[in-house]
Amino acid sequence: MKKRLFTPGPTPVPEDILLEMAKPIIHHRTSEFRKITEEVQGNLKYLFQTKSPVLILASSGTGAMEAAVSNILSSGEKALVVKGGKFGERFAEICSSYGARVIPLDVEWGKAVKPELVEKILTQEKDIKAVFITLCETSTGVLTDIQAIGRIVAKFSDTLLVIDAISSLGAVSCQTDAWNLDVVISGSQKALMLPPGLSFLAISEKAWRRIEKSQLPRYYFDLKKYHKSSEKFDFPFTPAVSLIVGLRKSLSLIREEGIENIIKRHEILAAATRTAVKALGLELLAEKPADSLTAVKVPEGIDGAELTKRLKEKYGVNFAGGQEKLKGKIFRIAHLGYFDKLDIISAISALEMALSELGYKFELGSGIKAAEEVLLKGI
Amino acid sequence: MKKRLFTPGPTPVPEDILLEMAKPIIHHRTSEFRKITEEVQGNLKYLFQTKSPVLILASSGTGAMEAAVSNILSSGEKALVVKGGKFGERFAEICSSYGARVIPLDVEWGKAVKPELVEKILTQEKDIKAVFITLCETSTGVLTDIQAIGRIVAKFSDTLLVIDAISSLGAVSCQTDAWNLDVVISGSQKALMLPPGLSFLAISEKAWRRIEKSQLPRYYFDLKKYHKSSEKFDFPFTPAVSLIVGLRKSLSLIREEGIENIIKRHEILAAATRTAVKALGLELLAEKPADSLTAVKVPEGIDGAELTKRLKEKYGVNFAGGQEKLKGKIFRIAHLGYFDKLDIISAISALEMALSELGYKFELGSGIKAAEEVLLKGI
Repeated sequence: MKKRLFTPGPTPVPEDILLEMAKPIIHHRTSEFRKITEEVQGNLKYLFQTKSPVLILASSGTGAMEAAVSNILSSGEKALVVKGGKFGERFAEICSSYGARVIPLDVEWGKAVKPELVEKILTQEKDIKAVFITLCETSTGVLTDIQAIGRIVAKFSDTLLVIDAISSLGAVSCQTDAWNLDVVISGSQKALMLPPGLSFLAISEKAWRRIEKSQLPRYYFDLKKYHKSSEKFDFPFTPAVSLIVGLRKSLSLIREEGIENIIKRHEILAAATRTAVKALGLELLAEKPADSLTAVKVPEGIDGAELTKRLKEKYGVNFAGGQEKLKGKIFRIAHLGYFDKLDIISAISALEMALSELGYKFELGSGIKAAEEVLLKGI
Repeated sequence: MKKRLFTPGPTPVPEDILLEMAKPIIHHRTSEFRKITEEVQGNLKYLFQTKSPVLILASSGTGAMEAAVSNILSSGEKALVVKGGKFGERFAEICSSYGARVIPLDVEWGKAVKPELVEKILTQEKDIKAVFITLCETSTGVLTDIQAIGRIVAKFSDTLLVIDAISSLGAVSCQTDAWNLDVVISGSQKALMLPPGLSFLAISEKAWRRIEKSQLPRYYFDLKKYHKSSEKFDFPFTPAVSLIVGLRKSLSLIREEGIENIIKRHEILAAATRTAVKALGLELLAEKPADSLTAVKVPEGIDGAELTKRLKEKYGVNFAGGQEKLKGKIFRIAHLGYFDKLDIISAISALEMALSELGYKFELGSGIKAAEEVLLKGI
């Protein structure tokens, strides 16, 4: 039985990238490696759709989230944090750890924040120094309208907009410069089709001005160090060499396919998945679902843990379950990164068979029929 | 778009085998390599279900077919060749090339030979020295009842039974000793889940007695040389080292799964495929289909070449078309070797979508529904 990964990170890594990373390791203080870094830096700007430098850290995405907080805030400053899931809550925890004053904007898990609410709070509360928002909340599959929020925050000259685009960059549209996003964070193990271990930050000029003045303790995550080194295509600390070699290949595959085509592919795969699960009589969790992953409510009478266990053990299919308050209540089918039409078919068919074995009543094949219709017609 | 191979050789190679073969090459005249050879020889006996030695050639399957002919026949001797497809015809061509007198037993492509017909000819014609039969005729997907034919040929003390089990060994039952099969031939790129480049011959005592006396020119394919070397876990000529290293891994995977379980898996995948294509209103070519591959008639009004081209270019799915007189008239879905349930689902779904695009009328999803029913219930 083959193993098929449908988790929202790590995601499947293309064979071409695995082969690149299996090549003998090279040293990072060489012209050979600086050439790779130069190429990677250029292609990251393409991916993030920005003219600003995109910094590369050897850390998980959480490291980059911490770097954003500790580099733009100072102790006691106000941060508006949209909390609509596990990763919104993580931003709040990091801000609190550094002594920032968190103003929470609680959103029901599964719902998207209303941009006008952000505007209202920014107007009422004085001196909010940064707004922290998750583009695709991985725990719920919800997409946030960061384009609208970007327009709002841009009106506040002393407020930065920080976007966690970890499970969304390269899967859904995220136009850093055009949408006035000040800090955009991502990670390697999502739509970038790499193993975990790298994180990225695109940083606007408005954010750099703040970073110059901010006063919080930091060393490994001191972004000024990374910025300075990056101008010489270098790193302040030992970079994750094999992952960066893989990143070069990943970004060249992304340029080859083209970011618009990649986003279109994710749109179609997500639409096929959503249509299929609805055809099976299942309900989506997210009011406004992102195209990165589909969070599905476990139907009544079915044990969610048993369902994901059966999918894994009998069909080799790895779906993520729910986290924290959603544990056992949802399962999540990821389709971000290295996925194609027949991957979606495999996921839906395994789901049909496992549900059928657990006694859920539905017309066998109806999910696939619905998915095929979307894949054939497009959207 | 990912590439998915559903051709009856080469077949997909498991990642674990690819990784084994990617290790640094070792020399073949070393104790290290002889240890590998010893393990491989033991496990080949398990796979072929024989106590006789199984010889390994660096050649495609056709090389082993030629070795069988040139080692057991002498010029002018009679050979009964069952010709029910391209590979039966190949046996006849090889026999003719070596000056044997071919007695053809022509079988309509798609039909299986009747064992009693073999008995009738063996009784009528005197001095038939060997019967050449294909277990699974790859060009038509037909399975031959070699167990019945083995019982018949065993009654003729001076007649050998030679089986081309290239696209069947390790996918369908083939019990070399128990069924009195004198020479059983196979190749690496089928159910053995390896790249092409190796072929195998299991040879009975009855066949060895003939080989001692046979008089046909041969050098590279002189099986006595291979037999003698094999006793020292060695080879007369340079073996295909990396493929044999891969073979060790392949055979250890086969032992781990167990030959009975492997045959059962192929039975279920084949049944699911056949049931699915019939549910789509399509017709099978083979009267008695083998579990290695499913040959399907191209429905009226559909261009067979266009169908396989579209599957390949739009869905990344590689089906084989028809060969020779069946060109454009059938397509073949292989499911031998490294295949699981969701591979079959992918193949059927791609077929549904491509057929739909070409205007074939059927209920979308009905093939998958039928396949899922078989995969869920078993057979």
